[in-house]
Amino acid sequence: MIKKILIANRGEIAVRIIRACREMGIETVAVYSEADAEALHAQLADEAVCIGPGPSAKSYLNMQQIISATVITGADAIHPGFGFLSENSRFARLCEECKITFIGPGSEIIDKLGNKSEARNTMIEAGVPVIPGTKDPVYDVRHGKKEAERIGYPVMIKAALGGGGKGMRTAFSADEFDLAFQTAQKEASMAFGDDTMYIEHFVEHPRHIEFQILADSQGNVVHLGERDCSIQRNHQKVIEEAPCGAISEKLRRRMGEAAVRAAKAAHYVNAGTIEFLLDRNEQFYFMEMNTRIQVEHPVTEMITGLDLIKEQIRIAAGEPLSVSQKNINISGHAIECRINAENPDKNFRPSPGTIQTLYLPGGCGIRMDTAVYSGYTIPPYYDSMIAKLIVHGKDRAEAIAKMTSALGEVIVEGIDTNADYLYRILNEPDYQAGRTDIEYLNTHTL
Amino acid sequence: MIKKILIANRGEIAVRIIRACREMGIETVAVYSEADAEALHAQLADEAVCIGPGPSAKSYLNMQQIISATVITGADAIHPGFGFLSENSRFARLCEECKITFIGPGSEIIDKLGNKSEARNTMIEAGVPVIPGTKDPVYDVRHGKKEAERIGYPVMIKAALGGGGKGMRTAFSADEFDLAFQTAQKEASMAFGDDTMYIEHFVEHPRHIEFQILADSQGNVVHLGERDCSIQRNHQKVIEEAPCGAISEKLRRRMGEAAVRAAKAAHYVNAGTIEFLLDRNEQFYFMEMNTRIQVEHPVTEMITGLDLIKEQIRIAAGEPLSVSQKNINISGHAIECRINAENPDKNFRPSPGTIQTLYLPGGCGIRMDTAVYSGYTIPPYYDSMIAKLIVHGKDRAEAIAKMTSALGEVIVEGIDTNADYLYRILNEPDYQAGRTDIEYLNTHTL
Repeated sequence: MIKKILIANRGEIAVRIIRACREMGIETVAVYSEADAEALHAQLADEAVCIGPGPSAKSYLNMQQIISATVITGADAIHPGFGFLSENSRFARLCEECKITFIGPGSEIIDKLGNKSEARNTMIEAGVPVIPGTKDPVYDVRHGKKEAERIGYPVMIKAALGGGGKGMRTAFSADEFDLAFQTAQKEASMAFGDDTMYIEHFVEHPRHIEFQILADSQGNVVHLGERDCSIQRNHQKVIEEAPCGAISEKLRRRMGEAAVRAAKAAHYVNAGTIEFLLDRNEQFYFMEMNTRIQVEHPVTEMITGLDLIKEQIRIAAGEPLSVSQKNINISGHAIECRINAENPDKNFRPSPGTIQTLYLPGGCGIRMDTAVYSGYTIPPYYDSMIAKLIVHGKDRAEAIAKMTSALGEVIVEGIDTNADYLYRILNEPDYQAGRTDIEYLNTHTL
Repeated sequence: MIKKILIANRGEIAVRIIRACREMGIETVAVYSEADAEALHAQLADEAVCIGPGPSAKSYLNMQQIISATVITGADAIHPGFGFLSENSRFARLCEECKITFIGPGSEIIDKLGNKSEARNTMIEAGVPVIPGTKDPVYDVRHGKKEAERIGYPVMIKAALGGGGKGMRTAFSADEFDLAFQTAQKEASMAFGDDTMYIEHFVEHPRHIEFQILADSQGNVVHLGERDCSIQRNHQKVIEEAPCGAISEKLRRRMGEAAVRAAKAAHYVNAGTIEFLLDRNEQFYFMEMNTRIQVEHPVTEMITGLDLIKEQIRIAAGEPLSVSQKNINISGHAIECRINAENPDKNFRPSPGTIQTLYLPGGCGIRMDTAVYSGYTIPPYYDSMIAKLIVHGKDRAEAIAKMTSALGEVIVEGIDTNADYLYRILNEPDYQAGRTDIEYLNTHTL
């Protein structure tokens, strides 16, 4: 039994967790930085403890302070939310050592899945498709070409020590391979002082498709269907939806089964997400597993009727899952837009400051997850997301119409937001037709 | 096809209808009184027409002005919402004469169902149970006693011309009958100068159970399950929920079938509600049929996933129902609380005025239907309801926990509200255990 939970986070996710706890009859402790004294999460919780100055490193990332606050308030569990310490295995281990229930997987599992090559090997063993690539280092063009044939074109040629796009070339056919390899290797040699190369299949126009899973400590694992998070800017998700309109029931089953296999292979416990790339030929590839609740979890809640935060807490308390795979029904279509305090016309420059006027829409099929209010001052230290607007319609067309209508109602005065930018995306013919991939925002002018 | 709808209403229901229209790509015209120039519905609609001074009789009940506004703006349909002109057959007839689509049943059906004795006869013919009562006038105690035996005790003895509780007595058995009849008849004679009596079965501790139905112009009728609206103050509903925890699947089917029969017998078209009294022995009795959308329709939307306003519009446009009875699934439990600008400590005196600070909760399973905003001034002319807080949980216990938590978050400064009063009802052991009937608020001190 968990009686009191400390929420090691801020903003809307902290509020989201506090509400779930209240509904479960669990006491809550908020932690807040000096910059967050007026924050909603600190006001809503049963108790609130200041853990340090504004900058995250001194407060929300300060493990010692958070553990102290937990011990002092007598909380028996910590919910880390997302971001901050949520995927920090050292923090999870510290909780374990202090006999505090960390609401998430164990530290060893976080470590294992955080190590990309170990995670990749686990998935290969479990029969989960990964992006085909070379196992051994590649030094010369002839060996590389053989490997490329085996992997299948198009291929991406990468410097083994690479990063930042340097020493990286794509070859769409054998004709292009030699030049691409030699150029990439030359660049690698110059940039990193090392000409060891790695070759992997290049996934063209992929969608970002992720599967939500729930796993209890008794070994039961279910998936709750997929989310399509292809609308990204600089690898940051902007709009997420569930289900993905481009996935057939058959493919959903295959990917879902792979996701469950992945979680089982990792001996995963709690809520987690398996991220895949999906190409246009229905081939999908494991990217990574996120060992925390995600920003976009509400779209899954809207189509399944489940409360993922409550599920997390019950799992952490040792309870078995409340649902089995066959009892999970997907109903309708949900979309989430991340409303950020930023100015899209000024390269998305963050726009902290005081919200003078705030009007947020409500009504049928509208969910608003936020921690801001009229008169609230957004501090400059944290993520610029100020609200998540989530809609649920009977199908994708209705969900889009609902989101468009709701975005049109949003009024935030005193700071800049991306609400109009989101509105423009929703009104793009390609978006409306579901012609999206992870390059969408780079290939469409809004 | 309906292209433009004039909404002959104000407040949250006007906003609710405008949003549904926007999502359907239908243009909207708001009408507003001089007191409502700053009202949200007037701001959200594509067009807004002032139809007169603050008092309803001069604006929202002013048929000529509303028809004129419809003609001038070229709207092809009127949605009347609830209250005001929504069940006024003269208004519906005026729309018919002006070739404006009235979104609701035809004027003849409104007339027929508005006449209590005609409605009662229609239901008897259709085999829908009504409260058993005498068919012919009763003048003497022996005839009365015979009728009482036939009807079944307890019985209510009423002056045929009665009202206001005068000339009314209850007899729980034959032993009590003679005295009760004679006393009632004497009172009737003195109060109304007429000693004609009427005897009907007295329904003890009834719940108010109503069934939502949808009927299209092709003759298809479905019911969307029941709502329990037993929590009433002075016959005004305060809290509504769906489904009713005290109804078995078998009884739901029986009552639902009766509701569908009732609607078919009345040749009903559009959304409507059949109100029943339900006693503790699973006997139910037709009370009346409401020929409009109701305040509490969102609880049905939450458990069925349907949008009743959109269904109304589609039906009015001549489309067939989008669902059949077997495709309607009830999922989870929903509760609605009516948040009113009133002071429960001062006999629920209305509390118009300016809302200085407004904070309304959101999040998982929370729906807020409102037309107020921070800085908005509530005019003194209209109903005191300022918001509907609706929650959806996996079961009744979760819905109650959610409502309690959400009500605890509500902040309205500048005016009085009943939020604390609602909170206290939700926390009553009898309410939580589902031990409710229409006398609940009279028999519990809060």
